[in-house]
Amino acid sequence: MKLAIYGYGNLGKGVECAIRQNPDAQLFGVFTRRDPDKVKTLTGVSVYPADQIGKYKDEIDVLIICGGSATDLPAMTPMLAKDFNVVDSFDTHAKIPSHFANVDAAAKESGHIALISAGWDPGMFSLNRCYASSILPEGNDYTFWGRGVSQGHSDAVRRIAGVKDARQYTVPVPSALEQVRAGTNPTLTTREKHTRECYVVAEDGADLARIEHEIKTMPNYFDEYDTTVHFISEAEMKRDHGELPHGGFVIRTGKTGLNGEHSHVIEYSLKLDSNPEFTASAIVAFARAICRMHARGDNGCKTVFDIAPGDLSPLSPEELRARML
Amino acid sequence: MKLAIYGYGNLGKGVECAIRQNPDAQLFGVFTRRDPDKVKTLTGVSVYPADQIGKYKDEIDVLIICGGSATDLPAMTPMLAKDFNVVDSFDTHAKIPSHFANVDAAAKESGHIALISAGWDPGMFSLNRCYASSILPEGNDYTFWGRGVSQGHSDAVRRIAGVKDARQYTVPVPSALEQVRAGTNPTLTTREKHTRECYVVAEDGADLARIEHEIKTMPNYFDEYDTTVHFISEAEMKRDHGELPHGGFVIRTGKTGLNGEHSHVIEYSLKLDSNPEFTASAIVAFARAICRMHARGDNGCKTVFDIAPGDLSPLSPEELRARML
Repeated sequence: MKLAIYGYGNLGKGVECAIRQNPDAQLFGVFTRRDPDKVKTLTGVSVYPADQIGKYKDEIDVLIICGGSATDLPAMTPMLAKDFNVVDSFDTHAKIPSHFANVDAAAKESGHIALISAGWDPGMFSLNRCYASSILPEGNDYTFWGRGVSQGHSDAVRRIAGVKDARQYTVPVPSALEQVRAGTNPTLTTREKHTRECYVVAEDGADLARIEHEIKTMPNYFDEYDTTVHFISEAEMKRDHGELPHGGFVIRTGKTGLNGEHSHVIEYSLKLDSNPEFTASAIVAFARAICRMHARGDNGCKTVFDIAPGDLSPLSPEELRARML
Repeated sequence: MKLAIYGYGNLGKGVECAIRQNPDAQLFGVFTRRDPDKVKTLTGVSVYPADQIGKYKDEIDVLIICGGSATDLPAMTPMLAKDFNVVDSFDTHAKIPSHFANVDAAAKESGHIALISAGWDPGMFSLNRCYASSILPEGNDYTFWGRGVSQGHSDAVRRIAGVKDARQYTVPVPSALEQVRAGTNPTLTTREKHTRECYVVAEDGADLARIEHEIKTMPNYFDEYDTTVHFISEAEMKRDHGELPHGGFVIRTGKTGLNGEHSHVIEYSLKLDSNPEFTASAIVAFARAICRMHARGDNGCKTVFDIAPGDLSPLSPEELRARML
């Protein structure tokens, strides 16, 4: 399958690396809205201007759109689905239904197939919520995130006056995780599920107490959480917080039996050194499925719920049954 | 969907209970090879003689075959796929390809759909091996089972002269689990992955040393493991070992990045109070998918790799996207 990358940030670079691990995938090139001459790819693959992509319609099986969910993807994915099979990682959960409708209309009209919201959450975590709740109808779902860097929260801290750089870690509360695993079906508030840790490089002479107060009281981002703020030097930031780890847990506990006498715990967890690289790796596997589904005549917008797991694997159905079942 | 149960042991009873948790499912009845008058169901649902099942072709959407993998299912599933959509939990991993071929031929000829090897292993564990290996091509898979009762190993111990009753627990070795989670990609022997614990009620006057020796040296079942044998009373067996708990772990660790510089751990685990009831709960969710796929015109033999996850859920695609993605 011939893949191409549209947008070359952390996620696009992750896709570039992931494709090299899949012998059946080949990278046609990277499309960027920046000046292509100024974009140097990790592997030396060609860079093309985004506005010329229409010329390459017949050379790309699946286009992987690596834009942001806030403003890029809502416009890009429906537009590009007119000419390409596409995959995106749209992650604004509340806006998924409208994004789906827009992409579905564009893809159906052009006969292409599109997968939105691929990755790990949305993505693998969503699948695990779906499987677990289908198997244990009488139960409760819990999703915990972290320990990992939230880029949205890090950006929010960086916008405070006097902040030069910041990194925010979302951390699950261990006792909450234990309660959930024990099957006690606790009702947990936002504050009881996660804490937030901020590492902040302040500008010289900035009022640290004010910065800390502004962080801890910031509506939506921090006010409902127990937040700790650590002021560190630029050198410490570079040394200790240069990576983008993440992960989390999807746990469902439920009962079975004539009178609910047996308890069960289903747990899926991820521990990721690099959030964008893992997301990219998932996307490339889903691109394989999209490619196969299009070859079978399928079109329109899909989500991970619509993809048969075997279509993700480079193995044939026979090999899968013999080796993995 | 109207479901029926063929075979009424622990698994059949589990299916009977699971169906009550799914408002869109209805249990037509139980088919048994025993005298129906002597079979009393947990919920009072009707019992029919197995050899009369042909009469009820048009009243059953999916037939759930609850037989053993050794001799029942290889004959039953292809036979019943001639008249019904069927689901089984065939778990002899090495014989899956030939079972698949037989069931596929029968189901395709009759236009029915069949799902083999549904449950948790094969089943949910297989799916997790497939997803994880597709996402992280450069990595290693590990499956650990337990702590849980292995019915095959318990039966093997019961066949030893002087053994009145026995229960065998398969137990993952904690240090092996930790090595795997740490991403060290250890090469683990059979002995290093699991230990086996046997609880044995001996007949009065039996030679306990001989029984213990026969267990520990039994080829295929115990000789490659570190096994502990505990002799207990009948009352202790009844009090402490009356349940069928099980579970396990599917872990994949892998690397991403230009030079494999980032490590990732994907872990799926189950902790089950009742192995047959959880298997049954998974089967009922997969029966829903089979029913929907048949309504869309699909036929032939399927495995869990062929089932889109959304088809397992009672929620509509719109609800799934809005609530679970």
